[in-house]
Amino acid sequence: MKFNIALLAGDGIGPEVINEAVKVSDAIAKKFNHEITWTPALTGAAAIDAVGVPYPDETHEVCMKADAVLFGAIGHPKYDNDPSAPVRPEQGLLLMRKKLGLFANVRPTFTFPSLIDNSPLKRERIEGTDLVFLRELTGGIYFGEKGRRDDGETAFDNCVYTRAEVQRLAKKGFELAMTRSKKLCCVDKANVLETSRLWRETVQAMEKDYPEVTVSYEFVDAVAMRLVQWPNSYDVLITENLFGDILTDEASVISGSMGLMPSASVGEHTSLYEPIHGSYPQATGLNIANPLATILSAAMMFEDAFGLKDEAETIRAVVNKSLEQGIVTEDLAAKGTKAYKTSEVGDWLVANL
Amino acid sequence: MKFNIALLAGDGIGPEVINEAVKVSDAIAKKFNHEITWTPALTGAAAIDAVGVPYPDETHEVCMKADAVLFGAIGHPKYDNDPSAPVRPEQGLLLMRKKLGLFANVRPTFTFPSLIDNSPLKRERIEGTDLVFLRELTGGIYFGEKGRRDDGETAFDNCVYTRAEVQRLAKKGFELAMTRSKKLCCVDKANVLETSRLWRETVQAMEKDYPEVTVSYEFVDAVAMRLVQWPNSYDVLITENLFGDILTDEASVISGSMGLMPSASVGEHTSLYEPIHGSYPQATGLNIANPLATILSAAMMFEDAFGLKDEAETIRAVVNKSLEQGIVTEDLAAKGTKAYKTSEVGDWLVANL
Ligand SMILES: CC(C)[C@H](C(=O)O)[C@@H](O)C(=O)O
Ligand SMILES: CC(C)[C@H](C(=O)O)[C@@H](O)C(=O)O
Repeated sequence: MKFNIALLAGDGIGPEVINEAVKVSDAIAKKFNHEITWTPALTGAAAIDAVGVPYPDETHEVCMKADAVLFGAIGHPKYDNDPSAPVRPEQGLLLMRKKLGLFANVRPTFTFPSLIDNSPLKRERIEGTDLVFLRELTGGIYFGEKGRRDDGETAFDNCVYTRAEVQRLAKKGFELAMTRSKKLCCVDKANVLETSRLWRETVQAMEKDYPEVTVSYEFVDAVAMRLVQWPNSYDVLITENLFGDILTDEASVISGSMGLMPSASVGEHTSLYEPIHGSYPQATGLNIANPLATILSAAMMFEDAFGLKDEAETIRAVVNKSLEQGIVTEDLAAKGTKAYKTSEVGDWLVANL
Repeated sequence: MKFNIALLAGDGIGPEVINEAVKVSDAIAKKFNHEITWTPALTGAAAIDAVGVPYPDETHEVCMKADAVLFGAIGHPKYDNDPSAPVRPEQGLLLMRKKLGLFANVRPTFTFPSLIDNSPLKRERIEGTDLVFLRELTGGIYFGEKGRRDDGETAFDNCVYTRAEVQRLAKKGFELAMTRSKKLCCVDKANVLETSRLWRETVQAMEKDYPEVTVSYEFVDAVAMRLVQWPNSYDVLITENLFGDILTDEASVISGSMGLMPSASVGEHTSLYEPIHGSYPQATGLNIANPLATILSAAMMFEDAFGLKDEAETIRAVVNKSLEQGIVTEDLAAKGTKAYKTSEVGDWLVANL
């Protein structure tokens, strides 16, 4: 097969981890007889510096024409202390999600047996954890009307959802649940919010179309607790944009494998794959960042965007092998053992595919 | 001294745990020569059943006249599966907060050495954790305009904050930080929300009035992570209503002492003290619920509402003693040891004051 992949390296360690994911993907393509064309494009602070906006039209064109997008990370400290600066990298992220119609963010949290003791949680609490959040990504309070009144003394953000927006996200949730343990949890705050009541009634109405799926409804505050107490009691969770932002990040640290968690954003026009970690500015250029989350995001891309399960499994297998053999960057290296460089990990994976 | 305390037992196990807090408070009053008048009033499902509304005007009158309010828990399963029912216990809670002007919810999370191994987190992660959230409680998306458009197909919830609302909450945060480690964390989502930008700029402008306090600004998703990773890196945290709802519940489970955490809501007209746990309907009437969170809430009341530190410390000391000696309800009883009844725990505390 032939693929055209948009390559959005972004800021900070983005280019370094993307580099390793490209290496591994190219090696997989060679092994399985595929041909990948990578088309790099600017985004984030790098794009602001070059052309003044964080998500340039040219980048959007590249993404729209691609079969999938592989994304690094964006964000730069020079914008951090002034969230109200007129142009910020995050705006590019939101614009990109909206313009590409990436309405569902797929965020798995699972454990690697060899990393389980890195978790802040006790082993018996997280063993077997394997859950997936579907976070709505192009609606809600992120995209509602916002502004000031009363000479700036009053601020507002409007949270808006339509039934159709809930349906298309929930549909993906039910479908995903069907391929897994057939358990779906709808996370909302229906005891307080009208948007949550719309979410709940919409999902309730869809239950009859998926009679095999057991659906539970839980309040966001209760889920924030149970994720820490019994993360392995969850399977597929669906939720709105802001709740998803908070809960997926909370979930990511419980596994002990935060630096390894991949994600996908899927939707109307294309799909995008990215590590869940940030741009880690302090490590920029040092060749020390962990590339595995990006490499596992590429695995998700092979499986979900191109339907190539063997290719994805081959990547996951070699990543597991590298973890077991301790071929890891400094964030994962056991005390007193050698820490490998970002590029060395990539090279090892390619050599051991 | 003489106190008039409004007693809102509420639903489920509320009356049982309140009963023990009254016992202990009366014993403390006797020991320290105070006189307490308790004025019971209806709230929650109990109030709906009796008079049709969850926060009757008579109850409001009782609270307004009292020196403080001691609150049990509200919520009943018959309302749970229909969050859009026209009358619900939670509405009473929100109305009560609003009408009593309880704009700041004070939620400590700390560890009891004897319970530390109950935590889902590893001992070294939570040892020394002693943080306090100040959650804004009468503004934000909970109280903004909400409703439907387009024949019910579109739902909206408006989040609104004024600078004055942020200031009065932040002021309490700075003052609390001054009495503790002088570290304050403002939790927001200023990279996306306009209300968060108002929060951040308002707190930033107040920094100069508290030169000794070190203020950090963190995004809500980052805090959701760090609370699990390094809870003991926090001291005082201030945040808006919805973020506070999620994060305080998340924080409550990390200590391993969830069933023991007290809380206070303070504001314009009076202050209210309640355990953070819910109404635990399955346990209603069984005399098995843990009364310690309510008893420790009464201790907060003695200290914060009445300025009686010795009385509060006496309660905390005897609670500690009961934990050390295993005079605990079934939720805390070690395997193979006797579980005490709710009322037995109260009796023991009174006898050992
Ligand atoms: C950077 C920020 C706008 C973004 C979000 O809140 O969506 C990030 O936290 C994420 O989860 O991808
Ligand atoms: C019952 C509910 C409305 C309430 C809230 O969200 O404030 C509860 O979760 C709490 O935190 O006291």
